[in-house]
Amino acid sequence: MTNWKAIDLDAKTWIKEAGQHIIQSFSKGVTIETKSNANDLVTDIDKNTEQFFIRKIKENYPNHRILGEEGFGDKVSDLKGIVWIIDPIDGTMNFIRQQRNFAISIGVYEDGIGQIGLIYDVVNDELYHSIKGNGAFLNDLLLSPLEEIIVSEAIIGMNATWVTENNRIDPALLSPLVKHARGTRSYGSAAMEMAYIATGRIDAYISLRLAPWDIAAGIILIQELGGIASTLKGEPLNLLGQNSLFISKPGLHQEIMKNYLNDGKW
Amino acid sequence: MTNWKAIDLDAKTWIKEAGQHIIQSFSKGVTIETKSNANDLVTDIDKNTEQFFIRKIKENYPNHRILGEEGFGDKVSDLKGIVWIIDPIDGTMNFIRQQRNFAISIGVYEDGIGQIGLIYDVVNDELYHSIKGNGAFLNDLLLSPLEEIIVSEAIIGMNATWVTENNRIDPALLSPLVKHARGTRSYGSAAMEMAYIATGRIDAYISLRLAPWDIAAGIILIQELGGIASTLKGEPLNLLGQNSLFISKPGLHQEIMKNYLNDGKW
Repeated sequence: MTNWKAIDLDAKTWIKEAGQHIIQSFSKGVTIETKSNANDLVTDIDKNTEQFFIRKIKENYPNHRILGEEGFGDKVSDLKGIVWIIDPIDGTMNFIRQQRNFAISIGVYEDGIGQIGLIYDVVNDELYHSIKGNGAFLNDLLLSPLEEIIVSEAIIGMNATWVTENNRIDPALLSPLVKHARGTRSYGSAAMEMAYIATGRIDAYISLRLAPWDIAAGIILIQELGGIASTLKGEPLNLLGQNSLFISKPGLHQEIMKNYLNDGKW
Repeated sequence: MTNWKAIDLDAKTWIKEAGQHIIQSFSKGVTIETKSNANDLVTDIDKNTEQFFIRKIKENYPNHRILGEEGFGDKVSDLKGIVWIIDPIDGTMNFIRQQRNFAISIGVYEDGIGQIGLIYDVVNDELYHSIKGNGAFLNDLLLSPLEEIIVSEAIIGMNATWVTENNRIDPALLSPLVKHARGTRSYGSAAMEMAYIATGRIDAYISLRLAPWDIAAGIILIQELGGIASTLKGEPLNLLGQNSLFISKPGLHQEIMKNYLNDGKW
């Protein structure tokens, strides 16, 4: 049987060490490249951090596979066995411009089931972590299960992009939600926004364009706390391809699916 | 002649002391009221903090007047003499829900001219401060003048509200800006977003509904760094009433006014 506590302990040790490297990098120059388009940036720190995790995992768990944002891991076309899904820096633009509001995100899956979720807000030294069935924590603090909330009292994490002309969703669909919610926020890092839901700082997060490494850790944390994660059609998330993501406190998910997303029929 | 350095020193001492009270309040319960509508919250901490500043100012500067969000100051209908414009907690919803992403904001004006601007990010112990003509600082660090930037490379602070149906601006006006900018963010505190411009973490901030206490400190800081502050019509800001606010790095302000806001003719 897999010793998840041992894996979790290793993952936490490595994520803290990677965080130290990242903090040290702030005083040095950061080299920046663009990936597929100008809004998709990558730095040498992203790449070095991913390679650091891969080295550690391969040394200690040679049978595990790795799906990483920067592509140094394995070619993963199924989720059989144990797969680490890693975003070395989620929120690279924030990393470059703000040196805050970014996180390391690690989800460990076995046969497609999320077992360990880690989101590390490096700058604030806040580690959000969960082993499936054992609760979710912020550092040493056990987080409370998420409580139901209604739209009119909710703060929704959602970028303005999704209520303006875009290729993925009719802006008219989510515009009434912006109007009816107590407020909206946008922090520019999916992992951070999910960590914010875990602590009750916001109540839901919506995005139309996310990759497996953006969401792998966060959905484990939120589900452990009783939250609900799906695509914006209400379908299960696919950890092998691009997704929309609608992740939310309970109650709120059902209300938004029904009253704003037409039960996924859009 | 007014001794601005002495006033600045007092204001910094008081803002730090107020910050300590606020931090201590996190462990106690916070009583919440709503003001004009459900989205406009006020806590006992807002009220106590404003009263603390008023007491200190009246004791030390009996001739100065005070315009405060919670209304405990003076009835201010002109800006003659020295007027302190105070928001004890800018971002009250964040204060309640997140215990972060809020700030104390203090602007000191003489005959309508901004002389001292202070924004205190209490939780991060980051004090942004400026005396007119003496540069702007984050704690002890002198901030660099703001450099020009173009829309396609810019991160704009703007809530999704302003690109969905609302009473203040046609959503079609700013939607293309969301599309063309490198990114948008929304943090839910005008003072914090302006502090973020001061440090280059974002490049502009747009809001259609702000009061004098939301903007009084930030515009002093940004103007000291060479940034530009106006309404969304391109007009000067009015510190005695509600405003729209478009505050930005240089270059970017002109580009957005011309290409998105039709030089204010909307």
